[in-house]
Amino acid sequence: MKIIDKIDKMKTHARIIKKGNKLLGFVPTMGYLHEGHLSLIRAARKQSDVVTVSIFVNPIQFGQNEDYKKYPRDMQRDEELLKNYGVDILFYPEKKDMYPADFSTYVNVEKLTDGLCGKSRVGHFRGVTTVLVKLFEIIKPDIAYFGQKDAQQAFVIKKMIKDLNMDITMKILPTVREADGLAMSSRNTYLTGTLRKDAGLLNRSLILAADLVRSGEKDAKKIIKSIKDFLLASPNIKIDYIAITDTKELRDIAVVRGETLVAVSAFVGKTRLIDNVIINEKKAQENWKYDGLLSGRQAV
Amino acid sequence: MKIIDKIDKMKTHARIIKKGNKLLGFVPTMGYLHEGHLSLIRAARKQSDVVTVSIFVNPIQFGQNEDYKKYPRDMQRDEELLKNYGVDILFYPEKKDMYPADFSTYVNVEKLTDGLCGKSRVGHFRGVTTVLVKLFEIIKPDIAYFGQKDAQQAFVIKKMIKDLNMDITMKILPTVREADGLAMSSRNTYLTGTLRKDAGLLNRSLILAADLVRSGEKDAKKIIKSIKDFLLASPNIKIDYIAITDTKELRDIAVVRGETLVAVSAFVGKTRLIDNVIINEKKAQENWKYDGLLSGRQAV
Repeated sequence: MKIIDKIDKMKTHARIIKKGNKLLGFVPTMGYLHEGHLSLIRAARKQSDVVTVSIFVNPIQFGQNEDYKKYPRDMQRDEELLKNYGVDILFYPEKKDMYPADFSTYVNVEKLTDGLCGKSRVGHFRGVTTVLVKLFEIIKPDIAYFGQKDAQQAFVIKKMIKDLNMDITMKILPTVREADGLAMSSRNTYLTGTLRKDAGLLNRSLILAADLVRSGEKDAKKIIKSIKDFLLASPNIKIDYIAITDTKELRDIAVVRGETLVAVSAFVGKTRLIDNVIINEKKAQENWKYDGLLSGRQAV
Repeated sequence: MKIIDKIDKMKTHARIIKKGNKLLGFVPTMGYLHEGHLSLIRAARKQSDVVTVSIFVNPIQFGQNEDYKKYPRDMQRDEELLKNYGVDILFYPEKKDMYPADFSTYVNVEKLTDGLCGKSRVGHFRGVTTVLVKLFEIIKPDIAYFGQKDAQQAFVIKKMIKDLNMDITMKILPTVREADGLAMSSRNTYLTGTLRKDAGLLNRSLILAADLVRSGEKDAKKIIKSIKDFLLASPNIKIDYIAITDTKELRDIAVVRGETLVAVSAFVGKTRLIDNVIINEKKAQENWKYDGLLSGRQAV
């Protein structure tokens, strides 16, 4: 595995790969890798000739009161994992090279970023789309891999790629979960004792919502109320938002109809967690288990 | 000359060119071509293997009260000119393809766009940088050509290319002028009679400023006052701004020192015109004529 920390070196390398007509798969990460990341890397390994993984804790996607500084990092372990998974290139640029003092260009997807996580994390998605345009320019991927866990992020990136006419195929893979259903996240490391146990309730609340839809409930308000009551039974949980939206513009809907996103964000102790499920009301009977609601680890 | 109006077709074509290891030169324009554009095309023809020119009157860089609808267009004449200049590809996409109804992704360079034209044309540069990222993604140029006439635009694009790590060499060519010094612009077609004559005063006011610096004047306020008095002698001229700034951050400076931008924007009748000169105070004696102050047409 080639380890590259300089932007220019990565660019030169990417150019050589492109000239060789190789298919370049790319998995952008902030490190502290878990099974969710590894499922993306496995898919990239299968579907492309050269696999590049980036590790960069992107400062501009963190709010002032968020956890940029204490975000978990373990480079040595990550390197080992990536080697074992047959990754070709690990790109981990430095903050000072990605954002020199005079940096001032931002990419922003409007509207889609107004609600859900965008509401409580102002500027977050602007940070995500900006760093991705940079990484895409540097790494020049043909395929880029993302997880369904960050549902809004996936929608936003898809929109950006389309709007900016980028030649990148985006693959969104199902959320990988712990045995109790908790969506894998680097931030789960913050959870200890009871908090870890309570964190599993987020997934359970989504299963509850899917069950309600399956049994014929279509009133979004009622479903949201059920999720809320279920979560607030735990004194450790503080709800950030519970949203039921369409899957095109991510706008709140009153009545569940067709493909629907149910998304939850809550603080478990001091740790903000998110989870979501996409329900197809028309096919709720057959495939409600399909869209990331399965407990346990999922094979890719 | 290949004429392409569909984004996907242009992309496919650009991919083929890149695979052939050809150097791709690109001149983005809004059409109604003049000697300024043609000087860029001549340079591109000399310096690259394949020359693509785009013609697209970009709606999102026009303000609500600006001249998007009446902006001059003459596709037939432009096509003839481009053929004669040995252009390989003319790309002229349609508005509905560049900006579908749900378009919502914007690229913005902050700070550099706050002053000068950015002040009176809010959102203008955001429109320019957004369309350019799209065109760059579609056309995949190695070299892109711009005119010094739009000085702030050149600074902004240069910054965007750097900040977003784009693999594009930017070439900025000197302003091409009419015999009386008026900077070439498609909008000059709006000027008739006395107004056309008065328009020449913009360049004359910059020559005046350069002369002042050459004779030892370093007080920006005094130089601005001289430009102002000179221009306002004509009742047809209304000043938008007169600015003296550094050439890094485009911030107003009080004392002319080193490389300095003197930029003027004024309405001549109802037509907004801009012009500028870069003066190197230390070398004012030798090279004041170099940076676009020459009257008459300049060879590339």
